[in-house]
Amino acid sequence: MTETTQKHQATLEAAVQALHGRTFYAAFPENPSPDIYGADADAQGRAAFEARRSQPFAELQQGEPEAWVGQEESPYEQAPLGITYPFYSPETLVRNAQEVFGEWRKLKPAQRAALLTESLEGMRQRFFEIAYATMHTTGQAYMMSFQASGPHAADRALEAIAAGYEEQTRFPEETRWEKPMGKYNLSLHKTWRAVPKGVALVIGCSTFPTWNTVPGMYASLVTGNPVIVKPHPKAVLPIAIVVAEVQRVLAEHGLDPRICQLAVDADDRLIAKDLAENPAVKLIDYTGGSQFGDYIESLKGKTVFTEKTGVNSIILDSCDDLDKVVQNLAFSVSLYSGQMCTAPQNFFIPEGGITVAGQPVPYEEVVQKLAQAVQGLAQNPKAAPHVFGAIQNPATQERVQQLALDGGRSILAHGTVENPTFKNARTCSPSIHEIDSSKVEQFSQELFGPIMLVIKTKDTQESIRLAAQLAREHGAISCGAYTTNPDIKEQIMDEMSLAGTPVSFNLTGGIYVNQNAGFSDFHVTGGNPAGNASFTNPEFVIKRFTWVGFREPVA
Amino acid sequence: MTETTQKHQATLEAAVQALHGRTFYAAFPENPSPDIYGADADAQGRAAFEARRSQPFAELQQGEPEAWVGQEESPYEQAPLGITYPFYSPETLVRNAQEVFGEWRKLKPAQRAALLTESLEGMRQRFFEIAYATMHTTGQAYMMSFQASGPHAADRALEAIAAGYEEQTRFPEETRWEKPMGKYNLSLHKTWRAVPKGVALVIGCSTFPTWNTVPGMYASLVTGNPVIVKPHPKAVLPIAIVVAEVQRVLAEHGLDPRICQLAVDADDRLIAKDLAENPAVKLIDYTGGSQFGDYIESLKGKTVFTEKTGVNSIILDSCDDLDKVVQNLAFSVSLYSGQMCTAPQNFFIPEGGITVAGQPVPYEEVVQKLAQAVQGLAQNPKAAPHVFGAIQNPATQERVQQLALDGGRSILAHGTVENPTFKNARTCSPSIHEIDSSKVEQFSQELFGPIMLVIKTKDTQESIRLAAQLAREHGAISCGAYTTNPDIKEQIMDEMSLAGTPVSFNLTGGIYVNQNAGFSDFHVTGGNPAGNASFTNPEFVIKRFTWVGFREPVA
Repeated sequence: MTETTQKHQATLEAAVQALHGRTFYAAFPENPSPDIYGADADAQGRAAFEARRSQPFAELQQGEPEAWVGQEESPYEQAPLGITYPFYSPETLVRNAQEVFGEWRKLKPAQRAALLTESLEGMRQRFFEIAYATMHTTGQAYMMSFQASGPHAADRALEAIAAGYEEQTRFPEETRWEKPMGKYNLSLHKTWRAVPKGVALVIGCSTFPTWNTVPGMYASLVTGNPVIVKPHPKAVLPIAIVVAEVQRVLAEHGLDPRICQLAVDADDRLIAKDLAENPAVKLIDYTGGSQFGDYIESLKGKTVFTEKTGVNSIILDSCDDLDKVVQNLAFSVSLYSGQMCTAPQNFFIPEGGITVAGQPVPYEEVVQKLAQAVQGLAQNPKAAPHVFGAIQNPATQERVQQLALDGGRSILAHGTVENPTFKNARTCSPSIHEIDSSKVEQFSQELFGPIMLVIKTKDTQESIRLAAQLAREHGAISCGAYTTNPDIKEQIMDEMSLAGTPVSFNLTGGIYVNQNAGFSDFHVTGGNPAGNASFTNPEFVIKRFTWVGFREPVA
Repeated sequence: MTETTQKHQATLEAAVQALHGRTFYAAFPENPSPDIYGADADAQGRAAFEARRSQPFAELQQGEPEAWVGQEESPYEQAPLGITYPFYSPETLVRNAQEVFGEWRKLKPAQRAALLTESLEGMRQRFFEIAYATMHTTGQAYMMSFQASGPHAADRALEAIAAGYEEQTRFPEETRWEKPMGKYNLSLHKTWRAVPKGVALVIGCSTFPTWNTVPGMYASLVTGNPVIVKPHPKAVLPIAIVVAEVQRVLAEHGLDPRICQLAVDADDRLIAKDLAENPAVKLIDYTGGSQFGDYIESLKGKTVFTEKTGVNSIILDSCDDLDKVVQNLAFSVSLYSGQMCTAPQNFFIPEGGITVAGQPVPYEEVVQKLAQAVQGLAQNPKAAPHVFGAIQNPATQERVQQLALDGGRSILAHGTVENPTFKNARTCSPSIHEIDSSKVEQFSQELFGPIMLVIKTKDTQESIRLAAQLAREHGAISCGAYTTNPDIKEQIMDEMSLAGTPVSFNLTGGIYVNQNAGFSDFHVTGGNPAGNASFTNPEFVIKRFTWVGFREPVA
């Protein structure tokens, strides 16, 4: 164990430093180039994925299953994958976790951090397999599948490991406390332990099965808590591979692989509530809809980290080059067909239009340019399949198809996105609706998927007021703003900061409001109803353990 | 402001360093010696206190009051002090706080930290006045009144300021993020703000009106939140002086003194609930009973820090010198007549007795030695008044007098503690009851005041099991253990750490389980039902603000 710890110490220290520098840092290259990952890596990953179809996933080391279950379908094929996973009852999973708690919590934080870092090296060897698994469960396009589920997720995991390691080693393990009492000193030998809270549960979502799961999973593990990972039943494989890698490393070091378990729903029964309500479960990470998230947050006696839904806004006030702005926004709304938690939904545009390079541009012209850019991208045969991917859930497609807003006007009707490789892919191009700013109830909830709402406001002041109000009351994970006016910019920063919402200003070119960089951008702030978790600020790891001190007179 | 910031920078940095070293550190000397505090300091402080009797407290700078109220009584005199305080309705207090929020949050963390440190220097000038105010509201003896309400409280406040300052400056205010894209770099200018949560409320207790109030008060202030301090109606004066000092410093620097307000209950109506339930109040610190604490914790949409009640245990297994042990324990239970949140209540002693210097000593002998030590201290005319002080609340005295435990035997009956200086002091010496370990319900709640329960257990294993179980289920703030067996010691550390309870081992001589040192001992761990606050670990300050980031392409 000492050797392992030393081996990974440099990686950990670099990660801690990156976390505090917040400049660009990536431990895992996002470019799926053969020069980086090996000439055959892609082909082998693809073959590994293909070989899994219609087979049981037999890599897990968590005991004899009670059944084999599986209900994944490829959004590109609209057909079942046929992969089955071992099923264990919630009671079994929790009992297993309790059994291995002592073994795991008694390791030093540096030992746990090293083992977990080692598991990320194993994950790296399987980035391409994970990429194909992600494509055929989430509907993400190939590049996003690779980047988000592979290197970006591994970076976020490393960030959580580093943050947890740092927080647990921030105070001395022991010290001699000498209090001068005049003629003598009172001497106490003091020690401290970072004590993990107990069994941890991580509930994943269907769209980002590794990126949204590994931060909580690794944060709980590094702080000494055994973890039960409960993926969305439609997106199991990508995270099953990661859990298998963690179990492999644990077993190789003589530890019980059940320190990190996979909990798959039965085909006829969801088990998240049974797990969450078990009194032994002390920590819960959750990504998904607000209704279930609010239920998770309401459970007594649990420490909970959530990423729920929000209503993300774009505020248009003024810019230098409107064409570049609408290109950028069209891409943001089209990327993975708007199925990102950071995708913008509400576009606030003043009825008097905006200022472009010092000249007024009427409202209607801005709206039409935006619509044309969206339409242009959706109909671009070369780019569209790689940008839009496929629709994960049939309900998302139905939401777009059936959207009927009271008092609005349709600016662009949704369509399909042609995909030459996957003829049967479930696709949907964005629809754009206009709503008057007075109809707040029409635009104050998340309409997940490729739906854009143009909200016609009195002026930029009303745009800011509404964007901040929606974020405060209904949550927001991202916000984009375009303004060349420094006072307006400061006002937006101030008001959105009070609404706990990060703001990207004046993005054009190859960087988008939806993107979120490990080691630099905090993801979700905890400051509004969209969730109380933040990848990875100190709070995200500190709440997973408690400091307990011991003291004794020096002999 | 820059000058002020620079002036206090060294103090702050020393405090941050002390916080991380956890070796002995005291910024404010605990010795009330004329050599340290000045020849006339005591006399002047006493005179200042005496001059306040039957007068309005007119130092606060928070606007025209709606009434003048006051209901304090001296436990040493059992007579009203007659001091009145300005009363403001909860709505007025919250509106005031909202009005000044912008001004306070826009200061840099270093500026707030410097101003608050300056206020502690003002507090230091009034330690003796605060000491007499504390004696005549809480019933603490002179020395504890001076130390706990003066230097020890100021140290805890400085600790909170230092922790808050450090956490808010842990990430850069701005950075240039450059992502290599092959042929070019994507460059973003990124900035971050630590955004305070909003109006903060701090609810104080009757026994430690400054020590238990200043950590939350200063933690919320340093992180940019305006604070409303709501003291216990029977212990207002000590903290009123501190609030006045904060207001004086704010006003001297051109800031609105209402950034820190005192909220005194009306004579006919308690206002804590109205304040706590106000939607604008986002942060609450609470010290006091568990029933009200549980209510505070149940409020939706608030970040809450509590210190409630617990059941503190002493585990007796083996020792070198039983006489020294019982002297130490007798002092711990007698100090301030058992009215400390860290005072031990349940003494677990095996029915087979304990091992003393390798020799068995029967159970009954241990119990009688303990009782004799307690009796001896209570009847020591020189020491007793200075150790026991007076009983703050008549209900505490009644609890001791009326205690009737089912199935127990009385080992020592309570009595009075003679006080030659204050003939009319409300005093009470400890009563000791024996209870069999099977009667868990008889010893599983806090019996606040000078009450000791001797619990006769099967063996040390049962002692440990019960102490840990009570801490887990009912909370505990301290634990003392006496053992010369290293395996038993490790077992106690392990099991009590899982119950979130710090343990003092083998204390004899001039150090006691009740004592808790700023900058070294975490007070309350957050790991059991006794409370979720910990002075001062990072969690205690981090949860008072959120990190929000902004980014924009580099021009």
